Amino acid sequence: MTAADAPSTDAGPRAAVLVTGTEILGGWVTDRNGPWLARRLGTLGVRHVTTVAVGDRPEDLLGTLEGLAARGIDLIVTSGGLGPTEDDLTTETVAAFTGRPLALDEALEGRIWDRVLAYVRRVASTGPTDLDALRAANRKQALVPEGATVLEPIGTAPGLVVPGEHGPGRAGVPTVVVLPGPPRELRPMWTAVEEGDLLAPVLGGAVRRGESTLRLFGIHEAQLADLLRDARRDGVPLDRLEVTTCAHRGELEVVTRWDPADAAAATALEEHLASHAPRALYSRDGRGVAEHVLDLARERGWTVATAESCTGGLVAAALTDVPGSSAVVHGAVVAYDDAVKRRVLRVDGGALAEHGAVSATVARQMARGALDALRVDVAVATTGIAGPDGGTAEKPVGTVFLAVATRDGRDEVRHVSIPGDRASVRERTVTSALHLLRRVLTEP
Amino acid sequence: MTAADAPSTDAGPRAAVLVTGTEILGGWVTDRNGPWLARRLGTLGVRHVTTVAVGDRPEDLLGTLEGLAARGIDLIVTSGGLGPTEDDLTTETVAAFTGRPLALDEALEGRIWDRVLAYVRRVASTGPTDLDALRAANRKQALVPEGATVLEPIGTAPGLVVPGEHGPGRAGVPTVVVLPGPPRELRPMWTAVEEGDLLAPVLGGAVRRGESTLRLFGIHEAQLADLLRDARRDGVPLDRLEVTTCAHRGELEVVTRWDPADAAAATALEEHLASHAPRALYSRDGRGVAEHVLDLARERGWTVATAESCTGGLVAAALTDVPGSSAVVHGAVVAYDDAVKRRVLRVDGGALAEHGAVSATVARQMARGALDALRVDVAVATTGIAGPDGGTAEKPVGTVFLAVATRDGRDEVRHVSIPGDRASVRERTVTSALHLLRRVLTEP
Repeated sequence: MTAADAPSTDAGPRAAVLVTGTEILGGWVTDRNGPWLARRLGTLGVRHVTTVAVGDRPEDLLGTLEGLAARGIDLIVTSGGLGPTEDDLTTETVAAFTGRPLALDEALEGRIWDRVLAYVRRVASTGPTDLDALRAANRKQALVPEGATVLEPIGTAPGLVVPGEHGPGRAGVPTVVVLPGPPRELRPMWTAVEEGDLLAPVLGGAVRRGESTLRLFGIHEAQLADLLRDARRDGVPLDRLEVTTCAHRGELEVVTRWDPADAAAATALEEHLASHAPRALYSRDGRGVAEHVLDLARERGWTVATAESCTGGLVAAALTDVPGSSAVVHGAVVAYDDAVKRRVLRVDGGALAEHGAVSATVARQMARGALDALRVDVAVATTGIAGPDGGTAEKPVGTVFLAVATRDGRDEVRHVSIPGDRASVRERTVTSALHLLRRVLTEP
Repeated sequence: MTAADAPSTDAGPRAAVLVTGTEILGGWVTDRNGPWLARRLGTLGVRHVTTVAVGDRPEDLLGTLEGLAARGIDLIVTSGGLGPTEDDLTTETVAAFTGRPLALDEALEGRIWDRVLAYVRRVASTGPTDLDALRAANRKQALVPEGATVLEPIGTAPGLVVPGEHGPGRAGVPTVVVLPGPPRELRPMWTAVEEGDLLAPVLGGAVRRGESTLRLFGIHEAQLADLLRDARRDGVPLDRLEVTTCAHRGELEVVTRWDPADAAAATALEEHLASHAPRALYSRDGRGVAEHVLDLARERGWTVATAESCTGGLVAAALTDVPGSSAVVHGAVVAYDDAVKRRVLRVDGGALAEHGAVSATVARQMARGALDALRVDVAVATTGIAGPDGGTAEKPVGTVFLAVATRDGRDEVRHVSIPGDRASVRERTVTSALHLLRRVLTEP
């Protein structure tokens, strides 16, 4: 992964994300808000300097806020710590940090209480509910620092925009946007903040940036670096763009961001990659390979199945992860045991004995067997050695055969060698299988 | 998620994790090192105060190191930024931060070069390799801050332990452990540091803590909170333990840590949960439900299959994620389309018409069909509405039926209602299906 120049964000406001919660700090729960907010900040025209995780201790939260302010951060976005329990202390701490007294917003308290009552009625909790205690706990969520703007709750916790002091001679107090921890609440709330004008004072003249995501498969990172160097040589003004390249599950992702004035440079880069790596560049709109496969099949009116050995169901799982996939994906056979390969997929016992289960012949027969057993138009098969055991000198761990067969009699087989552990081999086999399927579906 | 008292870590040394890399800060790549190090620090007898992510800019890294030192952090563990390229600047920056000049370790340079050559030969890179440029770039990785201890490279990047100044009147300079970014290099390197005596000056009298993980299924967080309150009332000295409870994929995890002197308190808590929630507490050794299912089947000499609709292969994928599962798991049928349910799993067309695909009857027939089609001893089936479309008033999104059938004629069916989006419904259905399978496998 490399990041090229990011000239236009250097001068603008600087931002930090502050994720709270003992469960995230302690490594018990994966933080989904930090990465999401980072990507959103990247198009806002601010420079995202750091993401910090702290636990539920107010002194750690306060120390971090003060440290970020001391480093000249203009915008802090916090996630979590807005619940009704006593270890939810973000609002109190932000109020102390900004020197703004808290006051009860009675109308807000009423709106929160309506939401809590609706929730209590819906979940019909297991024991008797102490409504008075609940109401007292929820009152805390309606405390608002003086001068802050309330962001209407999506769950029961409201968010806040606490204005800072910005502009010449007034720097030093960052604007703090306080958001709830659940991603389904945080995301729409942040989107509303971005679309409104509450951040205008801190954003100043920062302009919203354009962003595009290109996905490539079948080339190495070094080859992509060469392509970018060639693009620069051929006159693509790369220094006007912020280009991030990143390897992910066996694919390469190129994310480009630009100031509105430089949109033509982004288009020129995209066209350069499209003309110099036409086979590798498969997605220009952010859609992943599973979505491409499903859309290509839908266009042809084709149905799809998988026959999986080493991937154990992951190819089917990747396809059916996409909403609406049931119109295209009819099913899958996971044939982990050779008896299942023979009986359900009609793989020939002689082929298994002669070539072994991990072979081009067996992969082809598995794909064709799935076509017949599940009566679909196209099927993809995987067979390989995921490890850690089962490797031999001739077929080491990572040896994988892929095949696609179509109702109209075509088939394609691939042999790939995948480095890494069991999880990597399985994951990259899924990617390779979906790309083989995509290739076949794009042929005339 | 709640964390009970953590009395014994308060007085000890304070630690921070510092994760570097534009790809992690920007949200492009999931950080796997921060959470892993957090859990390890939790048993080391230090208080882990914060995890900070920064990009590849040295001024941001330096500013963060200084900020952590100013807040009295005693131990900083960094990950990443140790490669040969020019944006890998962690060692240089840590040297500047600690005021220790860098010197070339020639013997180390030779050892790194041997590793690079071996790697170049193994991967047989696509273009001609410029060995001189490579050697010059790799020299940088052999620069060592004065007084630091080198941690032998596992890939090509060595780690470092840069000693701080600790003890009465000498505080203010934290010890910095510098580790490479790839988890397969970072983890063994950190484990070696933990097991050696390089951290003795910063750890002082901190004692290594015990840790246990208990897993429960089938009770709510509020019920677990009640169980813990009852345990305290019944004399379990909970205030001697650090207890973290966390909901995860529909299960509850209880992680307990203790000072060696308080091991009996941890045992008392475990016994309390075992006697008051015997059905819910299914794992006392950290093994997950898939491993339990596989071990239980192996003990009986039984083979396993799945028949999946809404989970689309995820149950089979979860089972086959475990190394060695191929001895137990024979295969799976993903029957997304009703025609596959009928043809491959022999689900009765009348049952489909009368009850619908999402019904107890069809779930039972799917499990029994997988038993016959794949010739195994036990099979689990899933059918449900994962959403976002397909829900009705009678069967809203999240309606799921699960069934297990055994060769010796037993079957069990469950109806569950799962809240959340498509990914949550699929994920929790997998957990519930594996637990139903586990229950049946534990019956005499």
